[in-house]
Amino acid sequence: MTGHFFEGAEKLLEIWFLSSNNNSGTDKGNNDLRNIPRDLIEEVLNLVNCKVLKYAQSATTDTYVLSESSMFIFQSHFVLKTCGETTLLHAVQPMLALARDYCEFDKVDQVFYSRRKFLRPELQKAPHSSFDHEVAYLDSIFEGGCAYVLGRTNDDCWYLYTLDKTCAGTKSDQTLEIIMTELDPEKMKIFYQENTSSAAEATQKAAIDKIFPNAKIFDYLFDPCGYSMNGLLPDGHYFTIHITPEPDFSYVSFETNVSYNQYQDIVRKILKMFNPGKFTTTIFGGSAATSLDSQRKIFQYSDYGRVDHQIVCLVDYDLIYSYYKKYPS
Amino acid sequence: MTGHFFEGAEKLLEIWFLSSNNNSGTDKGNNDLRNIPRDLIEEVLNLVNCKVLKYAQSATTDTYVLSESSMFIFQSHFVLKTCGETTLLHAVQPMLALARDYCEFDKVDQVFYSRRKFLRPELQKAPHSSFDHEVAYLDSIFEGGCAYVLGRTNDDCWYLYTLDKTCAGTKSDQTLEIIMTELDPEKMKIFYQENTSSAAEATQKAAIDKIFPNAKIFDYLFDPCGYSMNGLLPDGHYFTIHITPEPDFSYVSFETNVSYNQYQDIVRKILKMFNPGKFTTTIFGGSAATSLDSQRKIFQYSDYGRVDHQIVCLVDYDLIYSYYKKYPS
Repeated sequence: MTGHFFEGAEKLLEIWFLSSNNNSGTDKGNNDLRNIPRDLIEEVLNLVNCKVLKYAQSATTDTYVLSESSMFIFQSHFVLKTCGETTLLHAVQPMLALARDYCEFDKVDQVFYSRRKFLRPELQKAPHSSFDHEVAYLDSIFEGGCAYVLGRTNDDCWYLYTLDKTCAGTKSDQTLEIIMTELDPEKMKIFYQENTSSAAEATQKAAIDKIFPNAKIFDYLFDPCGYSMNGLLPDGHYFTIHITPEPDFSYVSFETNVSYNQYQDIVRKILKMFNPGKFTTTIFGGSAATSLDSQRKIFQYSDYGRVDHQIVCLVDYDLIYSYYKKYPS
Repeated sequence: MTGHFFEGAEKLLEIWFLSSNNNSGTDKGNNDLRNIPRDLIEEVLNLVNCKVLKYAQSATTDTYVLSESSMFIFQSHFVLKTCGETTLLHAVQPMLALARDYCEFDKVDQVFYSRRKFLRPELQKAPHSSFDHEVAYLDSIFEGGCAYVLGRTNDDCWYLYTLDKTCAGTKSDQTLEIIMTELDPEKMKIFYQENTSSAAEATQKAAIDKIFPNAKIFDYLFDPCGYSMNGLLPDGHYFTIHITPEPDFSYVSFETNVSYNQYQDIVRKILKMFNPGKFTTTIFGGSAATSLDSQRKIFQYSDYGRVDHQIVCLVDYDLIYSYYKKYPS
């Protein structure tokens, strides 16, 4: 294969921290990742081959729109999502050091590293050329890592690395990720500068501002095409969308940590917005997982057949992976 | 690593057939895999590097105890299970040809190929040196194959290849497989010729004849150690046990297609019989899968913690994979 190509599929890292000094009290003191100086965060992002395009803060969250995707920093955890040929895992050791040095976070509570199968793995830089290499890299840093493959290794699949331990911080969290491919070319036209004059206009045209009307949105329209946005919601909730619109390798991802009960509505909205040929949903659930499991049969979407459906019961939560394809019209 | 080693972990192949001529009538005529001449089955087994040690027939089933595990042949499907460095997948094309030539089975209804991660994959012959190679081999024969990995790729895991299609024959079937490692050395002593004079004596000492008291048992005690048995039950039900007793790489597998409601009792019996340090259970279920799923929390065994638990919803049935480790005593 030759010619222009961009790997939209993101590497996604989430690390939760604990401090031996003060991990149960309400006064967190120095135990706050947002204490890390911003220029040091930018140095880490440079190691990963990302630049900061936008930065903003809310009461709970520092948010970065990056040249390749996004970062969110909360009191005791961060989410880093990078696409293209970035080397996200090079951020792990420096972030552990910064958390220790600036926040007295000397313990890792939980780690999640995940990504979809790359379209062109041969273009990735070490250790991202294969999941086995990524796992070996992570196993050299963490103890008790578990590596899972969801979906079909000879078709679409999704990889997860996490730690086999009970956690203090992550139990009350939840995440929905929607990964879409074979997007509707008409819908994708919005995300070209030749058709749309600003990020704000793209956000409005696509109705991204209608998903959560109370969100503060930080958006970016790339030259000549492509789009990223971070949305901040009350109570440390967020959502983020990344769009690679080129027809040959179109890719859109949506991610949020709002509560479960909204997930089916959100998926319907997002499908209407982007009209993908194929999509996967991954849902991480804590205490509500059992009920999610029993309700899983209702997660059905007209026009789409569910090709794969898998549930992984992890120590503190369940993971539900589903892969859908549009019915032939 | 040097010295004596045997890969107990079996490759397991199950193929279900259909005929375009007569796949719904009650008169199956020539559509019967048991019509294949026995010497031609033995030729296929030679290709795989297995010899036939024992052969028997019931009204529903032809059964073979092999130098490396077992084969069962039913009217429209067969089960072939081979351990060591056998090349099981070399049986696929010849079996398809025999089914077509001798049984007018011109269509494949469903395929299941599965195995545990090998202890020493580097000793395996092509295409068994990696799951990716096995999948490529199967994809060159079948259309619509789906490859899954259950469990942890960096610890114990279990591989499955199956076809993404609705089936005529397999829906009413079910299977329980129990794969055990780190077996109790005391329990394993039974399966050495220096301690036990015959296969029948091993079967009795271990109480294998008590698992299903109405079974017809065909057993074999290897020199100097190791044990295999096939058990035939009414209505096309079977069970089979294979034992590699050497402490450095001990391995025991149990498999049956009796009905679900017996599975928890069976697992308890088998655990008591062999006392493994670790074991996995895989349950394939058809129409009863949903209720299995809802009951899954009761599949708990004292002395063992459940490390992994995954459910894969396939087209016609669900697969439930669980991995257990003994609690430290």
